[in-house]
Amino acid sequence: MLGRLNHVALAVPDLVAAATKYRETLGAKVSAPQALPEHGVTVVFVDLDNTRIELLEPLGNASPIAAFLEKNPAGGMHHVCYEVDDIIAARNRLTADGARILGDGEPKTGAHGKPVLFLHPKDFFGTLVELEEA
Amino acid sequence: MLGRLNHVALAVPDLVAAATKYRETLGAKVSAPQALPEHGVTVVFVDLDNTRIELLEPLGNASPIAAFLEKNPAGGMHHVCYEVDDIIAARNRLTADGARILGDGEPKTGAHGKPVLFLHPKDFFGTLVELEEA
Repeated sequence: MLGRLNHVALAVPDLVAAATKYRETLGAKVSAPQALPEHGVTVVFVDLDNTRIELLEPLGNASPIAAFLEKNPAGGMHHVCYEVDDIIAARNRLTADGARILGDGEPKTGAHGKPVLFLHPKDFFGTLVELEEA
Repeated sequence: MLGRLNHVALAVPDLVAAATKYRETLGAKVSAPQALPEHGVTVVFVDLDNTRIELLEPLGNASPIAAFLEKNPAGGMHHVCYEVDDIIAARNRLTADGARILGDGEPKTGAHGKPVLFLHPKDFFGTLVELEEA
């Protein structure tokens, strides 16, 4: 069922500082910051040879990463995103196995314009898992 | 400087349960558990199409992930590992920029038999970063 690792998301308190560190200290290719107000984040993409890192900074008053940064003010690893071919089939298999989908259980349009789901970290050993239909 | 994402490491309190969930619920290809006593962990590799996830369980009395699991008993995202061509050049560039290398600052032989370094999470926005010479 799992295909590629689409991205690893790292929440950071200061996106410009984090992007600068990835570009200048680690020598990575980083995008310009992109505000995604409908997702409550501003994102910088770090392009690696086989996948990408997404550096996330909260945007607006209801950011989904605000609580995480309150708990981890320095930032930290926020979630991993795995690609699946068919997100409805994936959802049905997961719920049949007792895994909980965050929200109302229906896929939403994610930050890349594709259907996504988030799985409850308690069902995946403390890791927040996003599934994205590739 | 950064090449591929070599792996994402997830610390788990119960490796058999985590491997079973990745195999049966997420439909991923997972390896048999491999004990790495010199690294203080038992590992299961989850092979994705473009990289891999390493599920880590503590092994022995001085496991480097024991403190993490005490703080996060359910488990969680432990580190990311980026590949570099030349680990000494990478180390020199990092320390020149003020980044701290864990331990004595010299590369060690990592779990895949290649030279690795770990960077201080305080210098990388709360994320523990491993560099591995590819």
